[in-house]
Amino acid sequence: MTTLIDELKQKNIPSFIHKIAQDEGIGVQELIKDILDGYAVVPRNNRRNGFDPIAIGRGTRIKINANIGTSPHRCNLSEEMDKTQAAVESGADAVMDLSIAGNISQFRKNITEKFNVPLGTVPIYEAMIGLESPEQLTIGHFLNILEKQATEKVDFMTIHAGVRKAHIPLVEKRVLGAVSRGGSVIIRWMRHHQKENFLYEHFDDILKIAAEYDITMSLGDGLRPGCTADANDEAQFAELEVLGELVRRCKAANVQVMVEGPGHVPLHLIEENIIREKAICEGAPFYVLGPLVMDYAAGYDHITGAIGGALAAYYGADFLCYVTPAEHLRLPTLEDVREGVIASKIAAAAADLSRKRPAEIRRNLEMSAARKNFDWETQKKCCIDQNKFSKYLEKADTCCGDDSKETPCSMCGEWCAIKQSK
Amino acid sequence: MTTLIDELKQKNIPSFIHKIAQDEGIGVQELIKDILDGYAVVPRNNRRNGFDPIAIGRGTRIKINANIGTSPHRCNLSEEMDKTQAAVESGADAVMDLSIAGNISQFRKNITEKFNVPLGTVPIYEAMIGLESPEQLTIGHFLNILEKQATEKVDFMTIHAGVRKAHIPLVEKRVLGAVSRGGSVIIRWMRHHQKENFLYEHFDDILKIAAEYDITMSLGDGLRPGCTADANDEAQFAELEVLGELVRRCKAANVQVMVEGPGHVPLHLIEENIIREKAICEGAPFYVLGPLVMDYAAGYDHITGAIGGALAAYYGADFLCYVTPAEHLRLPTLEDVREGVIASKIAAAAADLSRKRPAEIRRNLEMSAARKNFDWETQKKCCIDQNKFSKYLEKADTCCGDDSKETPCSMCGEWCAIKQSK
Repeated sequence: MTTLIDELKQKNIPSFIHKIAQDEGIGVQELIKDILDGYAVVPRNNRRNGFDPIAIGRGTRIKINANIGTSPHRCNLSEEMDKTQAAVESGADAVMDLSIAGNISQFRKNITEKFNVPLGTVPIYEAMIGLESPEQLTIGHFLNILEKQATEKVDFMTIHAGVRKAHIPLVEKRVLGAVSRGGSVIIRWMRHHQKENFLYEHFDDILKIAAEYDITMSLGDGLRPGCTADANDEAQFAELEVLGELVRRCKAANVQVMVEGPGHVPLHLIEENIIREKAICEGAPFYVLGPLVMDYAAGYDHITGAIGGALAAYYGADFLCYVTPAEHLRLPTLEDVREGVIASKIAAAAADLSRKRPAEIRRNLEMSAARKNFDWETQKKCCIDQNKFSKYLEKADTCCGDDSKETPCSMCGEWCAIKQSK
Repeated sequence: MTTLIDELKQKNIPSFIHKIAQDEGIGVQELIKDILDGYAVVPRNNRRNGFDPIAIGRGTRIKINANIGTSPHRCNLSEEMDKTQAAVESGADAVMDLSIAGNISQFRKNITEKFNVPLGTVPIYEAMIGLESPEQLTIGHFLNILEKQATEKVDFMTIHAGVRKAHIPLVEKRVLGAVSRGGSVIIRWMRHHQKENFLYEHFDDILKIAAEYDITMSLGDGLRPGCTADANDEAQFAELEVLGELVRRCKAANVQVMVEGPGHVPLHLIEENIIREKAICEGAPFYVLGPLVMDYAAGYDHITGAIGGALAAYYGADFLCYVTPAEHLRLPTLEDVREGVIASKIAAAAADLSRKRPAEIRRNLEMSAARKNFDWETQKKCCIDQNKFSKYLEKADTCCGDDSKETPCSMCGEWCAIKQSK
């Protein structure tokens, strides 16, 4: 089978490309050019049908991803299905299954059958299951898992091929070392074997499978900073140079590629981080985790992540991985997933508004006009979370604004400024 | 009696100035110079003793304010006292009582006696109580209320003297008109009487009382934008010019002054907003409400406000008024107050970190080192909300990290990256 890039080069335009262009309000040719030039990706396993792919990257709406999946000590697949449902209902554009326990194949099958969003994975997680230690990993075993997941119709995969042996001394200078699960496994493997990262060494083999199934590569940042003191440091930027090389190798293989980024980054270093990624990786879509703009807000890291995500997206990041309030503390609950998705959507929406996306401008205007008119039904319709909107309004015990309507805001009563100034 | 500025000019240095300088980690002379030059204020009614004043402005930590107070339809003073307690416990540096119903004088007395934070008010609210309509307001009645509140030891007061008759046509061009309660009352009054704003006309009388009690003036932005489409518009900047003039008149009267700002402002207009205020108002401390970076996230406006607040403070805003999840929907509950204060503190902390405040850098480093060492006790101690930290950890049902300790994060189990990379 062929990849989307192959198809587009041969002027075969799949129907979903037209649909995406329409949804995004951009031209079909513009979208195709951005995909061919590597500025945008459309993650879609070529064995997967019956779902509506999305584009991530230049010219398109900022997208958000929700991570779900089991952990060794909390492994309930139906609970994770409920979380996926909550994530998609709340507006996640994609989900990544990070399961490390249970019947993962069945779980993935359920997700691709039930949900109309692209599915991502980190194959090294499943490759680790059953091994006594990370040192036992081999490229053969890894490629088997990769291909198995490809047959399971995974649309995009995180591959930690950028962290190299030469980076280890740079990691050792850090306050918090490596905090990426995949990155830390690779570092441990390289230390033990005193060899180069096998994912880097065998990247061409990985690309062969990726091309066969048209898996979009998501180049993992194994050295993403785990605290603000480690942000934009030598280790991170050294890995980024390798990611730039891997981007070029993906392109040469007609495989779509995006690049993953931090992590913990203080406000004043976010712009530099984005600009560097775009420069070194030839404008490949940038997929960031947060970034979190401070370190000590555990319990509220959906907020520290929304601050960083809004700024990152404004400066050019394309894809935001949500952070839930549970980050650093526990596996997220259903409610954590909802709060995380909405916070991330707020960051995306704020950036899209400032980047002057017409649809975003319209929605903000519609909400504002509805406020002026005390039109609570339209406010609810425009609102980012209709359930929460209703819950808050129902708890108010009085009305404000136009006397002729049931208008339940308890803030000002007859003192309502909008009413006064009419 | 005299004002702090009078005292400092006469080289009388109150002991609280030394304490503030020490708490902030800055030099006493530096602090005094910034107060005398109008770059920083220390709100403190000269009749109020037995509390620890704080400084707001250049060179000091970003401060945050929580609004509390009754509304006509929700008027329970003990509930508002509980909210004040929650706000102060959660880290509010100041509170404003915006009550418009009930025994407000008693409430204020309770607050100044019980809580060690400066108290602000908006005197026009109390001046409105009992009037049939805003048109009945007179300067005499207003000044009586102002002086009554001054005797009640209010430390800073919002005065909407900047909105003028000439601004009304500019407001009419807006999507959402005026959304400040004080501003909308003044506009209605000016429209009815076809006269200039009486607060502007009689600003010298206001300053006389302010000087007598050393009330810090907080110049209200009656025309703050109520939606992102109205941000940084002619109306807002026309009022800002008047606020600049009023700043100079406060300074001439040896009265401390800060300036209030928006409101709803998209990400890309925040920097301009701050820079303008600082230029036009001679660097007077800037006190912003949010700003909210989008319009349709009611139920989550503590998050849209934290995004805008972090950016505003990074660019130079000094004082953040919290926004709660209830904004636009109802009077906040106790829980809303807590969530609002913490979100605002996150914004302040993120900005202080990026502005390289040593105390902030230390706290982030301490948290990060504790993470590396699986030292959950220190993590809890460093954390922005110890209760939430414990609540989340207690719900996790397993352990991660160092096997020798009870380490309860359920996210990764044995897969913990920090453990792997050690």
